[in-house]
Amino acid sequence: MIKLAVVTGMILLVGLMTGCGVEQGDTKAGEKGQVEAVSSDKTEAITPHKGVNQEPVPLVVERVGEKEVNVEMTAQITDIEIAENHFYKAWTFNGQAPGPVVIVKEGDLINFTLKNTDPSIPHSMDFHAVHTAPSKNFADIMPDEQGTFRYTASKPGVFMYHCGTKPVLSHIANGMHGTIIVKPENGYPNDGGIDREFVILQNEWYKYNDLEDFASGEPSHVAFSTKSLDDNGRNTNGDTFTLKKEPLIANVGDRIRMYVNNVGPNEMSSFHVVGTIFDDVYIDGNPFNHMQGLQTVLLPASGGAIVEFTVKEAGDYPIVTHQFNHAEKGAVAILRVDGPDDK
Amino acid sequence: MIKLAVVTGMILLVGLMTGCGVEQGDTKAGEKGQVEAVSSDKTEAITPHKGVNQEPVPLVVERVGEKEVNVEMTAQITDIEIAENHFYKAWTFNGQAPGPVVIVKEGDLINFTLKNTDPSIPHSMDFHAVHTAPSKNFADIMPDEQGTFRYTASKPGVFMYHCGTKPVLSHIANGMHGTIIVKPENGYPNDGGIDREFVILQNEWYKYNDLEDFASGEPSHVAFSTKSLDDNGRNTNGDTFTLKKEPLIANVGDRIRMYVNNVGPNEMSSFHVVGTIFDDVYIDGNPFNHMQGLQTVLLPASGGAIVEFTVKEAGDYPIVTHQFNHAEKGAVAILRVDGPDDK
Amino acid sequence: MIKLAVVTGMILLVGLMTGCGVEQGDTKAGEKGQVEAVSSDKTEAITPHKGVNQEPVPLVVERVGEKEVNVEMTAQITDIEIAENHFYKAWTFNGQAPGPVVIVKEGDLINFTLKNTDPSIPHSMDFHAVHTAPSKNFADIMPDEQGTFRYTASKPGVFMYHCGTKPVLSHIANGMHGTIIVKPENGYPNDGGIDREFVILQNEWYKYNDLEDFASGEPSHVAFSTKSLDDNGRNTNGDTFTLKKEPLIANVGDRIRMYVNNVGPNEMSSFHVVGTIFDDVYIDGNPFNHMQGLQTVLLPASGGAIVEFTVKEAGDYPIVTHQFNHAEKGAVAILRVDGPDDK
Repeated sequence: MIKLAVVTGMILLVGLMTGCGVEQGDTKAGEKGQVEAVSSDKTEAITPHKGVNQEPVPLVVERVGEKEVNVEMTAQITDIEIAENHFYKAWTFNGQAPGPVVIVKEGDLINFTLKNTDPSIPHSMDFHAVHTAPSKNFADIMPDEQGTFRYTASKPGVFMYHCGTKPVLSHIANGMHGTIIVKPENGYPNDGGIDREFVILQNEWYKYNDLEDFASGEPSHVAFSTKSLDDNGRNTNGDTFTLKKEPLIANVGDRIRMYVNNVGPNEMSSFHVVGTIFDDVYIDGNPFNHMQGLQTVLLPASGGAIVEFTVKEAGDYPIVTHQFNHAEKGAVAILRVDGPDDK
Repeated sequence: MIKLAVVTGMILLVGLMTGCGVEQGDTKAGEKGQVEAVSSDKTEAITPHKGVNQEPVPLVVERVGEKEVNVEMTAQITDIEIAENHFYKAWTFNGQAPGPVVIVKEGDLINFTLKNTDPSIPHSMDFHAVHTAPSKNFADIMPDEQGTFRYTASKPGVFMYHCGTKPVLSHIANGMHGTIIVKPENGYPNDGGIDREFVILQNEWYKYNDLEDFASGEPSHVAFSTKSLDDNGRNTNGDTFTLKKEPLIANVGDRIRMYVNNVGPNEMSSFHVVGTIFDDVYIDGNPFNHMQGLQTVLLPASGGAIVEFTVKEAGDYPIVTHQFNHAEKGAVAILRVDGPDDK
Repeated sequence: MIKLAVVTGMILLVGLMTGCGVEQGDTKAGEKGQVEAVSSDKTEAITPHKGVNQEPVPLVVERVGEKEVNVEMTAQITDIEIAENHFYKAWTFNGQAPGPVVIVKEGDLINFTLKNTDPSIPHSMDFHAVHTAPSKNFADIMPDEQGTFRYTASKPGVFMYHCGTKPVLSHIANGMHGTIIVKPENGYPNDGGIDREFVILQNEWYKYNDLEDFASGEPSHVAFSTKSLDDNGRNTNGDTFTLKKEPLIANVGDRIRMYVNNVGPNEMSSFHVVGTIFDDVYIDGNPFNHMQGLQTVLLPASGGAIVEFTVKEAGDYPIVTHQFNHAEKGAVAILRVDGPDDK
């Protein structure tokens, strides 16, 4: 009963904003974007999104002072290949799902601009990294509008961001999530000894834009993605195949740090790297929350962590959630370690 | 197969105790209580509970010595409005679900009396805050009887209490849960700087008194409630609407402490307050278990925590479990912060 | 869609390896083993496993040096009574599910031999306690073959082990999991004061060998087992009844340590002992990860912990996961404390 009410509420919202109801129909991925159409893939986009596949707009991060940074992000509708030949007309930040990683420093004042290029519904930005009144600074931005908000990133860590427009579950589950890293002013204890850093996000996918399935169903896919920490790295989407086919690469002897974030919307992550033990773990990425020798770090929905470990032998190390139902549904990536064994 | 066996077992239990089986029928909420009857709401109470809606009996907590306290609670059957116009004939402590918060001090000897006014089935009390033999001191109290037990609250923290009568899952899921806070002898590090304190509980609701749904289903509603820390505060039930319509209130600049407890019966809570980061967190409310800068605290089923944070801007701050399927099902409360921004 | 693909993949794997597909049929438990046949129990073993019920082969652990130990384990197919009169033709290590506990010391070089006596499919061993390249040292061993691997247990703790052969979910869910304890070089803080130690594992059971149910279903049973820390103790399987009918035994006044491990495959555990609070908890069994005064410890899938507490009154103390849907499905054991109360 409540579920029906909720679904109806959403239809009404869309109807009010667009003057039309929700229709079912095929959406061919790639009609105007970077991905190929796949006739067997059918999604049920809301009418104003049908045929829309917006080219990803780059994230803009621009430092304007010792303690101040401008960040500009774009809400857009873009097809994402979540499993091989299975496309999802995602609601995204910057045409990625999860969105690009945002990196600032502890104490930074963030001047954040959200451009909403979605033709039909409002979007917003809820950064877990900031202290601010949500009703004021996580406010909705209407279609084809933009808004700027100012707040400070006062705590270090690995934080989730997501669209906070109602129904929030739909906006997150349809793809509007990502990670903001706030670098601690005094660094992490092992900063000097780290050879290689990765960002790994976990998210779930459900039936297309189906709020009832989001609320009560099982995920159809659970996905990992990696995001670039600089301008030259890889940004992959939350899918079930890319990080298996094109592994993350390290060398024997590397001390590796992973910034991990479980962007949900619903499930925990039992994050584990096969063949290793995490020497050091910082829960939510705060240097104070130090644990050692963990086989698995448990991330709540929205939770983050830093995990550090060393690889001493060449070979493939699967990265998984040890909730193996979710690994089976896609949440496996490969860390490939090259070179002669480190004896 | 096992599920059928379990359900049958419960029917037998009830049958043995009351001389009659389980019937299905409409129970109008509010037939003699504080809530209005809603004809569209149908619950399937066991026969001896049909039409029963007992007026809430107040919790009694009476200090009788430096290190000794008498606590008296009442098991009773009372209609609870878990969603707007949706009533649940709850099995309760003191006519609330979750029950009222009990507050004692570390080291207190508790003389606990349970009065069972349920006309048909036994109930009991399992305090997570005490060391005692459950077979002796968490024993069943028969209908219309009472029993007194003595045990010591030897550890500080935020602990769950619940009925421990078999099938335990039915007694918890039907509403017999709550929180006991044991104040640490030497206090918490920030006691002096706290401006405002709240108790927030999370619980799930399922199909009415349906052990199979309790054991294998999805919650129909996930609810927050608040409980009063003194004689003058608010006690709300675990519902989906009250703390949205009538928010918790604070002022700009307040340092806020929340005593949080996830009373289940089944799910984790990824407890989060939008627009803030928890400065300090004490897992299960023990001062030793200190974490800092958490975006979200993960509570196991029955787990507690203290979270502390400061609000610097006026506005509404949603309190959620970031498992957004559960937020969608009701687990959202509002913290309203009044006053000019604190610059 | 993805689920179908996965199931098909598994059928193909089995077909390729055995020359025959998967058939459905009755398997009578105990046809040649230690358990009694129960005609009402029907499992759907793959064809080469039908009628197979291999006698458990003992674990071999042999110290060969100050810092070196030989460990030999056997992959085998053995009927396990997971609920009363409900048998499961488990894929096992050493005819137990979970397998026997393996105990080594921090810093030990492990020479590990896996003998695969399964007539039809490969198996492997993934110890969470070691640093090594999985692609090399967690490799598949073919039927009727054996392989030896060398790696070091460099961190102390309570670690999961499991078969890592694809599909991993099937191998874990069918029973190939267990615990390896790595004793810390400098011990735990309370080693001198512990009177009694137990190993407690939690695992879930699903529909027989049904990868779709493993991936998207609810567990049919959730089970506890205990494993012997020396040559004379008890090894029980993951079932719903043994540790209720034949409790763990302690005496009044005992300080008790439990090595706890949640071997999954999918769920968290909210591990709790009724009537006690854990004085000390070490997450994943690492002495660094110390918590105090916990009512419940949350274990991720694969996660471990050491919990310590004292029992001061005679009586029965239920051990549960406080996710009570899972307790209802079997995850309850009894700790029976004998003797006059300790005043």
